[in-house]
Amino acid sequence: MPEPGTVAELGEFGLIRAVTENRRQPGSTLLGPGDDAAVTATSDGRVVTSTDVLVQGVHFRLDWSTPDQVGRKAIAVNLADIAAMGAVPTSVLVGLACPPDTPAKVITGLADGMWAEAESAGAGVVGGDMVQADQIVVSITALGDLRGREPVTRAGARPGDILAICGRLGWAAAGLAVLHRGFRSPVTVVNAQRYPEPPYAAGPAAAEAGATAMIDVSDGLLADLGHLAEASNVGLDLSREALELPKRLVEVGTALGADPWRWVLTGGEDHALAATFPSFADLPEGWRQIGVVNMPDSGVTLDGETYHEESGWEHWR
Amino acid sequence: MPEPGTVAELGEFGLIRAVTENRRQPGSTLLGPGDDAAVTATSDGRVVTSTDVLVQGVHFRLDWSTPDQVGRKAIAVNLADIAAMGAVPTSVLVGLACPPDTPAKVITGLADGMWAEAESAGAGVVGGDMVQADQIVVSITALGDLRGREPVTRAGARPGDILAICGRLGWAAAGLAVLHRGFRSPVTVVNAQRYPEPPYAAGPAAAEAGATAMIDVSDGLLADLGHLAEASNVGLDLSREALELPKRLVEVGTALGADPWRWVLTGGEDHALAATFPSFADLPEGWRQIGVVNMPDSGVTLDGETYHEESGWEHWR
Repeated sequence: MPEPGTVAELGEFGLIRAVTENRRQPGSTLLGPGDDAAVTATSDGRVVTSTDVLVQGVHFRLDWSTPDQVGRKAIAVNLADIAAMGAVPTSVLVGLACPPDTPAKVITGLADGMWAEAESAGAGVVGGDMVQADQIVVSITALGDLRGREPVTRAGARPGDILAICGRLGWAAAGLAVLHRGFRSPVTVVNAQRYPEPPYAAGPAAAEAGATAMIDVSDGLLADLGHLAEASNVGLDLSREALELPKRLVEVGTALGADPWRWVLTGGEDHALAATFPSFADLPEGWRQIGVVNMPDSGVTLDGETYHEESGWEHWR
Repeated sequence: MPEPGTVAELGEFGLIRAVTENRRQPGSTLLGPGDDAAVTATSDGRVVTSTDVLVQGVHFRLDWSTPDQVGRKAIAVNLADIAAMGAVPTSVLVGLACPPDTPAKVITGLADGMWAEAESAGAGVVGGDMVQADQIVVSITALGDLRGREPVTRAGARPGDILAICGRLGWAAAGLAVLHRGFRSPVTVVNAQRYPEPPYAAGPAAAEAGATAMIDVSDGLLADLGHLAEASNVGLDLSREALELPKRLVEVGTALGADPWRWVLTGGEDHALAATFPSFADLPEGWRQIGVVNMPDSGVTLDGETYHEESGWEHWR
């Protein structure tokens, strides 16, 4: 007999009911969960898609985060990719693997967080799959709608453009440092690690304002700007003064004896958006200039100098 | 130092290059792998989506199947869901988790199988994510195009319709029985277990011919027909004579002392398509009638009787 309250007791179909019943779908959901596949409206003959996988013990820990927070994070990291193309999120699909003795409450908590985060961005959870595995693995695929605009790729930056950012940098990394020391506060940085709050609307707004290239800052600012610089074949120079070190990160850095600049420049998981704009563009609300686009031979620099710390996260390394 | 030839040695970005470089994309791929998200063309203002997760040791074993075969299977089980809506597959996204000491050859083999299977259905692999986990988990999301037709759900069957099937039944289950006994032949049934060959084109053809309801047979014929009967609020009566027991399954059943009817009626993983059609419809090529649609109170029956074996696969049970 399976343990009471586990997914094994509820069974696959009971669990699917528990996570899909009485949920609201946006107007773009033409056919939601329950059939072989879902159907989503696409306004302009194109659909934007992105997949991210989160693994227990690698991307999240249930002793650090509630299932609800993990659910929010799983959706947010993916919708940030949709926003970074200049698209508006519409639908999300959830692939979930977990051990049979997982408390059903953990899974319904994950689902609650996923639905809440998707709804906050205007998207619906339209489908998924739940299977058995040795550890919890959450794989999310998000869909987005470009609403007639061209996608903003990483490849369009030109020398002379300005480099701008929208969203936080270094907060999730500071939160991780706090959690690793066994602390649970300050709660603003710890919560930033538990789930990001990407500025979803800033992506389409940047596209509308003429952004020439855009990227979701998931692995660290310098690492992700390196991807943008490589794809666009340009150099990028950041300004320390323009980046501004948040007072809270300075405080946490002092308390932990750590360099807050390293969090800002190399910390991942905040999912700010970075974009380049023509020098004459009016930056949309929430965007601030942090640097300029140069010729390709200069690479990614900080006040003209190369930054010599490890610059980002790479899996298996 | 990571072991030579492992994914840890190659690193995330090296591995992404290895599985994405020099691949062909169909015309529907407007933007393929390499940016924050992909862009796929949708011909009629809608996109069909489905997600399936496959876990090593649960859905596949690398001592029974080659990585290439597992890759084919992962894509096929998902594209079958797209076909079961009457849609044509366009794009696939791949979420992949694996241990750091996984041989890179295993991952490139998986990728080869995925690309080959997607290409055989006219689809391209447009995006994905690769992360670290304790066991190999493959999560696939497939996209499809309805080409102006309405989706064929599970819910439209009406009493008086005919019930038809396209594709194989019981072959994968027979193959599993063979493998469990430690044998590797007959190769036709063993290969049917290693990867299905869903009749992708039969889904859109059924929609074109006026199919009233359709489902992908993934968990077993009786179990999946039970889902269709419930969604449509009808009964379904199957005919043993019409189902026809393949000679090869009779031989394997005799050799193993097993009942081949059980494989046909309850075996999953062949990914045949089952659909109901108006009684006057001309069945498209490859479809054959196996029963009729009745009033709801009769349930799913075989020659008018309830079949009393366990009827399908349910996770965690």
